[in-house]
Amino acid sequence: MAKAPKRKVAKTKRSRAKAKPAARAQKSASELAKGQRDISVSEFFAKNRHLLGFDNPSKALLTTVKEGVDNALDACEEAGILPNVRVEIVQISETRFRIAIEDNGPGVVNSQVPKIFGSLLYGSKFHRLRQSRGQQGIGISAAGMYGLLTTGKPIVVTTRTGPRKDTRKLEVVIDTKRNEPKVKRDEVVKWDVKHGTRVEIELEGNYRGGQHSVDAYIRQISLANPHAEITYVPPKAEEFGAEHVFPRVSKEIPPETAEIKPHPYGVELGVLMQMFRDTQARNVRSCLTGDFSRVSQRTATEICDSAGVATSRRPSEISRESAEKIHAAIQRAKIMAPPMDCIAPIGETLIERALRAEVDADFYTSVTRRATVYRGNPFLVEVGLAYGGDMSSEDSISLYRYANRVPLQYQQGACAVTKAVIATDWKSYQMQQPRGALPVGPMLAMVHIASVWVPFTSESKEAIAHYPEIIKEIRLGLQECGRRVASHIRKRRRESDEAKKRAYIEKYIPQVAVGLQQILGLNDAHTKKIVRNLTDVLEKSRKM
Amino acid sequence: MAKAPKRKVAKTKRSRAKAKPAARAQKSASELAKGQRDISVSEFFAKNRHLLGFDNPSKALLTTVKEGVDNALDACEEAGILPNVRVEIVQISETRFRIAIEDNGPGVVNSQVPKIFGSLLYGSKFHRLRQSRGQQGIGISAAGMYGLLTTGKPIVVTTRTGPRKDTRKLEVVIDTKRNEPKVKRDEVVKWDVKHGTRVEIELEGNYRGGQHSVDAYIRQISLANPHAEITYVPPKAEEFGAEHVFPRVSKEIPPETAEIKPHPYGVELGVLMQMFRDTQARNVRSCLTGDFSRVSQRTATEICDSAGVATSRRPSEISRESAEKIHAAIQRAKIMAPPMDCIAPIGETLIERALRAEVDADFYTSVTRRATVYRGNPFLVEVGLAYGGDMSSEDSISLYRYANRVPLQYQQGACAVTKAVIATDWKSYQMQQPRGALPVGPMLAMVHIASVWVPFTSESKEAIAHYPEIIKEIRLGLQECGRRVASHIRKRRRESDEAKKRAYIEKYIPQVAVGLQQILGLNDAHTKKIVRNLTDVLEKSRKM
Repeated sequence: MAKAPKRKVAKTKRSRAKAKPAARAQKSASELAKGQRDISVSEFFAKNRHLLGFDNPSKALLTTVKEGVDNALDACEEAGILPNVRVEIVQISETRFRIAIEDNGPGVVNSQVPKIFGSLLYGSKFHRLRQSRGQQGIGISAAGMYGLLTTGKPIVVTTRTGPRKDTRKLEVVIDTKRNEPKVKRDEVVKWDVKHGTRVEIELEGNYRGGQHSVDAYIRQISLANPHAEITYVPPKAEEFGAEHVFPRVSKEIPPETAEIKPHPYGVELGVLMQMFRDTQARNVRSCLTGDFSRVSQRTATEICDSAGVATSRRPSEISRESAEKIHAAIQRAKIMAPPMDCIAPIGETLIERALRAEVDADFYTSVTRRATVYRGNPFLVEVGLAYGGDMSSEDSISLYRYANRVPLQYQQGACAVTKAVIATDWKSYQMQQPRGALPVGPMLAMVHIASVWVPFTSESKEAIAHYPEIIKEIRLGLQECGRRVASHIRKRRRESDEAKKRAYIEKYIPQVAVGLQQILGLNDAHTKKIVRNLTDVLEKSRKM
Repeated sequence: MAKAPKRKVAKTKRSRAKAKPAARAQKSASELAKGQRDISVSEFFAKNRHLLGFDNPSKALLTTVKEGVDNALDACEEAGILPNVRVEIVQISETRFRIAIEDNGPGVVNSQVPKIFGSLLYGSKFHRLRQSRGQQGIGISAAGMYGLLTTGKPIVVTTRTGPRKDTRKLEVVIDTKRNEPKVKRDEVVKWDVKHGTRVEIELEGNYRGGQHSVDAYIRQISLANPHAEITYVPPKAEEFGAEHVFPRVSKEIPPETAEIKPHPYGVELGVLMQMFRDTQARNVRSCLTGDFSRVSQRTATEICDSAGVATSRRPSEISRESAEKIHAAIQRAKIMAPPMDCIAPIGETLIERALRAEVDADFYTSVTRRATVYRGNPFLVEVGLAYGGDMSSEDSISLYRYANRVPLQYQQGACAVTKAVIATDWKSYQMQQPRGALPVGPMLAMVHIASVWVPFTSESKEAIAHYPEIIKEIRLGLQECGRRVASHIRKRRRESDEAKKRAYIEKYIPQVAVGLQQILGLNDAHTKKIVRNLTDVLEKSRKM
């Protein structure tokens, strides 16, 4: 709105003398310095737990399940094992639950258990560029911390790394002041599995239904992970049945994804300088070729020449100014897009198969787009659509969003996927769409983004940031599937028109025949023949 | 939408045997363990910088200014000094800026400079419950880190702690791999101020206008800090004038706010257990009375009795089970609300004065509500409204949101303040309001929340979380001011009706007089007298 600025812009030289000290006693810098201290990252997140998805009891319960399942699936796939994951939720009191997530993964080496489950920011996934569900090394230990904060109970980890190994059961708590784990108990137990891990967390939570429920999550995660068998034991077994088994739809484990080096286009000046300081390479050229993806000897030489820096310079001796020149030269150089084998899509066949398992629709279609790049990071978009059937044609479509096979349930409005769906012109695909909203119709849309680094808008992984490259790819995928749905809808409409016509024919020809019989005085056999002939003629003319 | 679940819920006993290992080579737990490592908090935030408000170049520039000014004002007030803050933005190239923030605060003790400016999660404000702008110990060092990442340049800190002390100028960079500061240069320089700090950061940024601009921020911060003099030197001096001085509106420094202890109602079980472990107190009773606010000897005894725990028990020996009983007993006990002297409002007079300096309106009003409590944390709401004048009556009102005197510019839609404004029935206050939207009219609304711990929805401090207690207080404040605005609007309307009537009288009486003169053949003096008399009679009747 138009505001009337009144405050005068006094163009005076500033004078410090004007500020008279107030009546309040002044404190010196050294007095103030006494209060300064380190803050541990776990203290920080304990106080700001909403940042990790522990805003309230319902969300805390869901987040805990998600972190556990993400870890279980990642562990199995990294080890090359077809995942069997079991999720149990036991209600202990009105507000208290015990959650257990069990997998048949490779197990966790004993010495690693405390750090993985009892300290934040520890893990194998942060420092590499590789597609995985977890990215931060924060999730499962944060869930354990939330449990500890609300119930005082440790996280309990039972793990076995092989049939000839002992099964160890550890109780771990996080010391939030130091972000360090403490092992409260460590014992050898009997366990009738060959290898795997079971994580148990007790927490204050709330179990509820709807879009943001654990039930919806389990369905959706199973949909995007057709190679996993997921067994779910909800809290009220009598109400929902003892166990729900979401069976494996495919026995094919996703191909192992390669870890890639950063692409030069996505590297900032400060990061480049850090790489020069840390590299093992003995000169700039070999640093460029060795530490980055897609930089050949020739490209590296070109970059150095263009920056006016000798290829033989020691990286650690590169000044800020030279680094800046190299950084600028990189932007000017022509460098191939990063390798795309680091991305493992679900695949069109499996998406369709999963959609068929999820809803009874009339038409299914899916597309896996070619991998492309945002900020130097390879990514790939997949879209699946199921149309018609029992789904309501009065409501907005259902939208399932996924990032690296993990469903995103919160913050639909803030997500790049939603933006792309809304920005697509569904009217041209025979669907209704209110202005600035999701289309309306009997459709389930599934959108999956796979990347070595998914740009989430928050640590709690609820929405994908609005990178134009990502939005564009999603739209292209939606359009491709949308066109197919449109031709299905048109075909259906034609078929229904035909059926209507056929119904007319079937209804009126016998009447005509009766009329003819009376007028011409025909016998029944003759009449039947006339009906047959008339039908044939009309059928033929209809088909032309 | 109604979905037709098709996936069958197979109630089978789960069998591990079904999962056959895929063709892919399996990896053992110990192979996988090799990749595990610590992640430093600065690495984490460097990669996830959008979480701290460095999403894009424009926001990065604004965030850097904000963090600098917040720190400057906090430092001055803590030291009891009336703040003079100078903000300079120099454009170096199309995308690069140098930002300097200078204050007349107490200065920073030399040994503290590296950690305060060169490591994340370090500071004096996190571990205490006290009203201040900064909360996390993350802001200014994150701005320095962003500068380093994008330009490779260190943060430059010039500081002097008193007239007889040297001025030190330090260049500090953060080692993101270790979250540790490195001092690149440390020298004694000449500076013609008695005490103060100047922070300079060079960064990739973008300077733009509008609601989210630095200019809007400076105006708004000055509005909520009438005791501060703020000098602003924008990047394009020729276009905007060399310097803008936002003068001090009041020479009264905000009263010093007390640090408080946590209130028992807001303490979770896990935190309580941690306090029992860490306390200096020798028994539970003295821990409860000494480490919490508002727990008297009698209340502490009541709590212990109700929990069945001896008051003389050593806190460190309290088991989880006993702690849980004490925690439950606390919720049952009647405990006074926390002390409210920890909250320093701006005050009604100063809010009105600031609003008058900001806009030319017809009517100003403000209210400072009494302090109250959410989750054990004291907080207080202030509302100021300016109505009429030059402001547009066609657009939505302008809403300025503040938390601890810091303007919130982003995420208006996600903020508790916006929710409270929308939930208020402005139609009953003589204003238009579209359904589910801000009211429409010539109004500026300013809402300030002061608290020992403001529950932001993200580290970048853009919106306040939806605590019902907070929303309720804001609504009550808006209603109080709204009623006053309504009576002003009604009064104005009456006045305008009267003026209209008066205008009729003034217009038609001379005509009547001319008629009478002609009909009765009066002279001019007689006519004038009649006009006077008629006017008097009509004025009297109008006023009755």
